[in-house]
Amino acid sequence: MSETESSSSRLTVDLGAVQRNYRRVAAELGRGVECAAVVKADAYGLGAPYVATALAQIGARSFFVAQVEEGTALRPLLPDAQIFVLNGLQAGLESECERHRLTPVLNSLGEIELWTAHSRRLGHSLPAAVHLDTGMNRLGLPGYEVATLAAEPERLQGLAPLLLVSHLACADLTDHEANSRQLQLFRSCRRQLPNMPASFANSSGVFLGPDYHFDMVRPGASLYGVNPLPNDLNPMVQVVQLEAKILQVRDVDRGTTVGYGATHRIENAGVRLATIAIGYAEGYLRSACGRGFAFLGDHRVNVVGRVSMDLITIDVTGIPENEAHPGAWVELIGPHLDVDTVAERAGTIGYEILTSLGGHHRRRYLEPS
Amino acid sequence: MSETESSSSRLTVDLGAVQRNYRRVAAELGRGVECAAVVKADAYGLGAPYVATALAQIGARSFFVAQVEEGTALRPLLPDAQIFVLNGLQAGLESECERHRLTPVLNSLGEIELWTAHSRRLGHSLPAAVHLDTGMNRLGLPGYEVATLAAEPERLQGLAPLLLVSHLACADLTDHEANSRQLQLFRSCRRQLPNMPASFANSSGVFLGPDYHFDMVRPGASLYGVNPLPNDLNPMVQVVQLEAKILQVRDVDRGTTVGYGATHRIENAGVRLATIAIGYAEGYLRSACGRGFAFLGDHRVNVVGRVSMDLITIDVTGIPENEAHPGAWVELIGPHLDVDTVAERAGTIGYEILTSLGGHHRRRYLEPS
Repeated sequence: MSETESSSSRLTVDLGAVQRNYRRVAAELGRGVECAAVVKADAYGLGAPYVATALAQIGARSFFVAQVEEGTALRPLLPDAQIFVLNGLQAGLESECERHRLTPVLNSLGEIELWTAHSRRLGHSLPAAVHLDTGMNRLGLPGYEVATLAAEPERLQGLAPLLLVSHLACADLTDHEANSRQLQLFRSCRRQLPNMPASFANSSGVFLGPDYHFDMVRPGASLYGVNPLPNDLNPMVQVVQLEAKILQVRDVDRGTTVGYGATHRIENAGVRLATIAIGYAEGYLRSACGRGFAFLGDHRVNVVGRVSMDLITIDVTGIPENEAHPGAWVELIGPHLDVDTVAERAGTIGYEILTSLGGHHRRRYLEPS
Repeated sequence: MSETESSSSRLTVDLGAVQRNYRRVAAELGRGVECAAVVKADAYGLGAPYVATALAQIGARSFFVAQVEEGTALRPLLPDAQIFVLNGLQAGLESECERHRLTPVLNSLGEIELWTAHSRRLGHSLPAAVHLDTGMNRLGLPGYEVATLAAEPERLQGLAPLLLVSHLACADLTDHEANSRQLQLFRSCRRQLPNMPASFANSSGVFLGPDYHFDMVRPGASLYGVNPLPNDLNPMVQVVQLEAKILQVRDVDRGTTVGYGATHRIENAGVRLATIAIGYAEGYLRSACGRGFAFLGDHRVNVVGRVSMDLITIDVTGIPENEAHPGAWVELIGPHLDVDTVAERAGTIGYEILTSLGGHHRRRYLEPS
């Protein structure tokens, strides 16, 4: 970095690490099971164009986004991929979906009707996924609509190729009874419907074993380094590094307080604080107040006082001045401190840490080596 | 909105409301006290170019940003304004600051030395603010540096015009003893230094009364509708409206659960849920799980289950089908539900709600009427 680099925080995304994680997930799969990639929400804040291209380069052929506009934005980069739209088909968007060859994940009989009607108007078949709800109560055909579809399979006429999907609610809780209950329900629904390939597992679902794999799995978080096995060693490598510069270092008096609300009181003499250029406006969640930590070189440093909009204060007592000085970079996420740990300290999950960063930082990409 | 509008969430910013709030704050001030505007963090996520232009149109002449690059981005829109950079002057950025006529808020003797050295190199004076820390322990000259500056006022040579600033830690807590303590300290520091105009109050500080106003006040949050008086009626008008579309409505069975982790259990028969197209990736904080609510028309509806990355589930039991249907817009922030209430439900402050939205939504602007 040159001395005149004016940005005082930076987010580095290691595209090679994303590729390694994709291969690691794929290694769990039997022959013939496809590994798709979830790149919604701008690839969890890391830049969907970059991530999707890096994955297509190593053979990923199917991608999932949430919204139509995300799919249309990716199409020029992924001319041959199948792009699924998880949030389904809204009335009025049929032509846009078809024009960009997007595959809507149809979440209701109403959406199935919209898409088959469009197929009839065009006079040719259209690709689709059909989403059955097996326990999220969020999106997907509820049981009473699955029954209707089983009784009237002609409702799917004009849709090809087809994929049957459902989504796990508790896959990260390996022993949760909901997993096998959802699996049973998915199998039973599948038997009632016309034969079609199926997709069930998200990142954590992949590690529940081959029963959950069906024909395609859909990892997202694990590709970005989030641990799919929260109670076990993380099989993924870290993808993201978040750093911010020290703006100022100060010796503070015993008995004084730090930051808004005067919530942190200095109890000892000889304390030295550094203020770094990142805050909740750059996605460092305010809920990390009083619990977060960071690294200055190899020194672990605590976040003290409230997180401000664009500033955080860390305790650098005892760290040599040639390390704790204005301009030095502090690691908020990186080799010493993974995204799951940061999330735990902020009372949330790694997913929210990643999506909070998106858009607020000038991202640097490390190319696959 | 046309039927083919593909975006399923939208953020509306009322620039007329921003102007009304600016005038409301200015009405608290005596003659000769200037009302500046804090537009850092992209005007708290609402779009600094739009907000700053709307405020310049009604007479605002001074603006505060956090970083140099924010200032350079605003300069073409505000050719005559004074633009202050709160995070100070980093070594190597002197030329960029000077070229764009930015006024650094100098936070240490080191930064003062950088800026005066640049003035000497150029052979003419440079504008500056000098920031004294009076109780944040975050940025600004600590007491021992103020003492040095008082003893050696020639350290400011070459800096003109000058503004002396400090920042309140507890201004929103009207009765907090820190307020008067900081005020006393600021006055006492001021007396020790060369005579220069001063700025002390943020939004809440303005409402602490004229003792806190000095020559310039620096409201930020209040301009965007955040209540500067948390224990009193909000004197500000709301600026932001956040809405998301219903994607699907479903009848759910008693005894089933909603969302990830199966945390919300349906206890009654006849419950109807709607899933709307917004989640934490669009800045609807995950910490609102179990506590958030929203409005569908005039109906108050609870957020149930966990907030997902791009979906939220709301309880629409008993609401007529002609209101609770796919495509209907749900208000997350707006006339029924102000930003402070949303923040309280998510365990944070209005500031973080606003900055979390920034960048994730296609913003629509309502022009001043």
